Amino acid sequence: MDSITMNEDKKEKLIELIKVQGEVVRKLKATQSSKEKVKTKHLGREKDLHVLNDYLANASYLGGYSPTHVDSAMLEALNGPPWPCNVPHLERWYHHMMSFSVAERTALPASVLPTRLVALFATNNHISDLEEKIAEEVKKLLDLKAQLGDEVVPQKFTLKTPKGTRDYGPQQTALRSSVLEKIIAVFKRHGAETIDTPVFELKEVLTGKYGEDSKLIYDLADQGGEILSLRYDLTVPFARYLAMNKITNIKRYHIAKVYRRDNPAMTKGRYREFFQCDFDIAGQYDPMIPDVECVRVVSEILRSLQLGEFVVKVNHRQLLDGMFEACGVPADKFRSICSAVDKLDKLSWEEVRKEMVEEKGLAVCAADAIGQYVCLSGGIELVDQLLNDEKLKKAKSACVGLEAMKIFLQYCNIYDLQKQVKFDLSLARGLDYYTGIIYEAILLGEEPGDNSSEGIEVGSIAGGGRYDNLVGMFDPRHKNVPCVGVSIGVERIFSVLEARLSAQKLKIRTTEVEIFVASAQKNLLEERMKLCKLLWDADFKVESSYKRNPKLLAQLQYCEESGIPLAAILGESELERGVVKLRDVESRQEVEVARDVLINEIRQRLGTKSA
Amino acid sequence: MDSITMNEDKKEKLIELIKVQGEVVRKLKATQSSKEKVKTKHLGREKDLHVLNDYLANASYLGGYSPTHVDSAMLEALNGPPWPCNVPHLERWYHHMMSFSVAERTALPASVLPTRLVALFATNNHISDLEEKIAEEVKKLLDLKAQLGDEVVPQKFTLKTPKGTRDYGPQQTALRSSVLEKIIAVFKRHGAETIDTPVFELKEVLTGKYGEDSKLIYDLADQGGEILSLRYDLTVPFARYLAMNKITNIKRYHIAKVYRRDNPAMTKGRYREFFQCDFDIAGQYDPMIPDVECVRVVSEILRSLQLGEFVVKVNHRQLLDGMFEACGVPADKFRSICSAVDKLDKLSWEEVRKEMVEEKGLAVCAADAIGQYVCLSGGIELVDQLLNDEKLKKAKSACVGLEAMKIFLQYCNIYDLQKQVKFDLSLARGLDYYTGIIYEAILLGEEPGDNSSEGIEVGSIAGGGRYDNLVGMFDPRHKNVPCVGVSIGVERIFSVLEARLSAQKLKIRTTEVEIFVASAQKNLLEERMKLCKLLWDADFKVESSYKRNPKLLAQLQYCEESGIPLAAILGESELERGVVKLRDVESRQEVEVARDVLINEIRQRLGTKSA
Repeated sequence: MDSITMNEDKKEKLIELIKVQGEVVRKLKATQSSKEKVKTKHLGREKDLHVLNDYLANASYLGGYSPTHVDSAMLEALNGPPWPCNVPHLERWYHHMMSFSVAERTALPASVLPTRLVALFATNNHISDLEEKIAEEVKKLLDLKAQLGDEVVPQKFTLKTPKGTRDYGPQQTALRSSVLEKIIAVFKRHGAETIDTPVFELKEVLTGKYGEDSKLIYDLADQGGEILSLRYDLTVPFARYLAMNKITNIKRYHIAKVYRRDNPAMTKGRYREFFQCDFDIAGQYDPMIPDVECVRVVSEILRSLQLGEFVVKVNHRQLLDGMFEACGVPADKFRSICSAVDKLDKLSWEEVRKEMVEEKGLAVCAADAIGQYVCLSGGIELVDQLLNDEKLKKAKSACVGLEAMKIFLQYCNIYDLQKQVKFDLSLARGLDYYTGIIYEAILLGEEPGDNSSEGIEVGSIAGGGRYDNLVGMFDPRHKNVPCVGVSIGVERIFSVLEARLSAQKLKIRTTEVEIFVASAQKNLLEERMKLCKLLWDADFKVESSYKRNPKLLAQLQYCEESGIPLAAILGESELERGVVKLRDVESRQEVEVARDVLINEIRQRLGTKSA
Repeated sequence: MDSITMNEDKKEKLIELIKVQGEVVRKLKATQSSKEKVKTKHLGREKDLHVLNDYLANASYLGGYSPTHVDSAMLEALNGPPWPCNVPHLERWYHHMMSFSVAERTALPASVLPTRLVALFATNNHISDLEEKIAEEVKKLLDLKAQLGDEVVPQKFTLKTPKGTRDYGPQQTALRSSVLEKIIAVFKRHGAETIDTPVFELKEVLTGKYGEDSKLIYDLADQGGEILSLRYDLTVPFARYLAMNKITNIKRYHIAKVYRRDNPAMTKGRYREFFQCDFDIAGQYDPMIPDVECVRVVSEILRSLQLGEFVVKVNHRQLLDGMFEACGVPADKFRSICSAVDKLDKLSWEEVRKEMVEEKGLAVCAADAIGQYVCLSGGIELVDQLLNDEKLKKAKSACVGLEAMKIFLQYCNIYDLQKQVKFDLSLARGLDYYTGIIYEAILLGEEPGDNSSEGIEVGSIAGGGRYDNLVGMFDPRHKNVPCVGVSIGVERIFSVLEARLSAQKLKIRTTEVEIFVASAQKNLLEERMKLCKLLWDADFKVESSYKRNPKLLAQLQYCEESGIPLAAILGESELERGVVKLRDVESRQEVEVARDVLINEIRQRLGTKSA
């Protein structure tokens, strides 16, 4: 904040300094590219490495908030591992920098060597050509800096949010709120409560729940005390909550952010920090009654959001197990074959079959037998057909699964879901913890002129199933609470709607302001404030300019841009006559309204507008 | 999940095993307390330490989710640092365990030695008396375990959330939502937008913003890539957001959780994870116009929440600086003397004076001069008095601050805040970054029969001020965006309201269900489902039992307990006659309604109820 009081002269010098530093970096770049592999063995001294390590203990990169050319220059100047001393932060940085290709590293933007590291080069006695060059340029900078005194040189040019995360601005937040409001309305229509859990859990709580994906869990630093991790989903914290509080039945929704150190694909709406939106029914109930309500909830949500046509594929884990058994899959291969089937939404049957046979060592006849089932999909008639299937008849869990599916599909008819729900034997779902019904809602693309009722699948938009054994993993006596639930893919929904808005070049209002208090002349600030107070007291949403003497045109333009429906305009003549000029912003029509009927008049006009 | 299929016999053996292990721990405890300081030098072998270290890499404690006697027993068996090898996790655990007093460690609950660590004792050749004892008991356990085969012994008995955090159950979430809804309504009445930022930031963004409190920042583990920290407040991310997106004016609110590794005092409602609720106006505007609106917002919020009487203390940072100057405080002591003044809400003037003179080396006459000012409080008349004060007149910033305060108090009158706002020279506020007006809202306790208008101060409930230089810290050219804002102490508000509800033995509804579909006889599940569908389609909030044949009494009791206003009861006779029995849950009165007018009848009844 020193710079606030910095005089203009100093400011100019600083800007010059910044330019010169940029020049140095460009020169260094030129020097380097003019040589084939500059070998510099001398920046490996333990002392140097510790200086770097200390710097990196509190910084992600050397030149700012994101990787820059300073990082690649340093990488060149260093001998890689093994390090002669304990430098964990340097090591972290090194591995991270090495994860970029040479081409990527060359293309990094220029930035400035931090002052603390300048010293590193300036005092090094064993300097190579390159380092000599750096030291020389750096000396110039230091001299220039000396002239400026102790002013801090601005070092960080690229402010950013952490990798895979983003800010939500007012537009995005407004869209998000409108989506979540509609979803919550459906949850409430079905009588759900809501709970909230901490953003981090003891690491032990998450351990052993996500299989291979555990490597994507964000851990907190060890700062003494407990070992913590950021939540990876909302289901495991929910199960922990039930077990910890000995809750045996609840119907709850939970909307919150979860964290995964995945490779972000932000253009596809895939982030490292993202919202999950879960609805679950926990409790010992009769078969399929809560299960079918979850699908009804999904259906109501997708219809209320007007996302277009969709299909909800359903299957049953016990039927899958029975089918594997009937096809001759050994019991210890059920899960791995199941995860191969799960890929059928992305791969062809040929590819999946290959994975089963070649990678997972399944007998060819077993794979082919599976192939005859997983291509089946339909309704209740398919269940009846499979109940008479000679092979499946012999597998007990297949029969259990089919009977359950029959009840489920009957209930679907009652809830008017028969058109959307499709029994599909290829649906497997990745998570290990499902024990019964599983489902996945898929949005169908709308092709203009496409008359087929099927449409094109544009992606999964919700999914879930029954998991009866998860809560027991947290209970000392393994006491279970049966659960069934569904997760709404809200991030995907945000993306779809954002794209739709942007295609239609529409903006949504980010405030709900109903009336703007404007002034037509100077020196009316206090009159504006009085009117604002009056209107706030009457519970209107009101704004006015924060300038003493704003221009009338600027005020009216603001109203039009922000979509504010009404403006109350004050002028000296209006004040004298005890009236206010009321302007309909859209039509630009103005009428004079007496002060004592103003509130009623505004109320009436807003009522007409919103109706 | 193995245990799910465990047979009864094995279960019993397991329970026996658990009992025996508990016994071992109790015996060990007895052994230990019977000896004066058992010296065990041999569990310091590098191999042993690495086993412990590896175990602690993924666990907070040795015996479960919280410290147990197993931890203290291990602590006794270990030689402390310096460790002969690199064991960071063991070290972390050691320091944490040492932070407990001996009395606390002795009082820890019993638990079970993890299997992996049992081996540690069983194979140790250099065992002391104590370890021999442990090894002996442990052998018994291992034998017992061998009989049981590979069953996993349940080890973790105390499930918990991380230190200083809590789950919010349905009751707490419902209360929280109702509070936040009212607050958001006020923010919207003033035309605020909302934004959202990631829960973590690059560590660099937070560095150098919180002074001493930086040690309370939660860091994320170094898992490669960027160095991240959890946000400590919402103001610094807001400033980063403005600078990064080059936003020069916005009025926004942000309600989200922030994280501080503070010593939690959960009984006082102080947590490590807690909500902040901020309202800020950024932009280059005319003096005091946005500043006074912030106070108006606070006042509207506190009135809408009906929290009782309150006062908003205001002061000005420039006036404070000018006052210090006038009293002869050297410029380099302004901030430290300011933070001493800040303690006047908790300490007496005598104590603060002592800190100034003895700890901070201020001249006695300067301290006494300050003492004459900080006891002053009042309204606009006090400003006029101080504008004529001989000493203050000579300090330029004092005059600037006083002139600003005068405008501010005039605006307060217009916004009808004069009764709540009190100009108070003792208000200083801790944060360094304030540059202008500062304020703090304090709730006044309501004593029965207390007629004084003053009341008793029960604590700060909101606070804020102007910070014109924070955004510039993030801008490469130090370009500033002036800001003023206020933070509503929502956690404190939740606590106050929770206490009030619990004192009145009131429960709030956690769902909004309007009608419960019940059945009077068996085998009516499908009829209930049909009626639910009909009512959901009509946009009513509807629940029904998830059991096939629930008892009528249980259903009606549920309605009464949950505060559901209406029940629709189905019976065979009603079905035959095409009617539904509609029950007013509170009055227990029932009427028969024909199916074709049911929707209208329900709508009418709910309308009457909510009116």
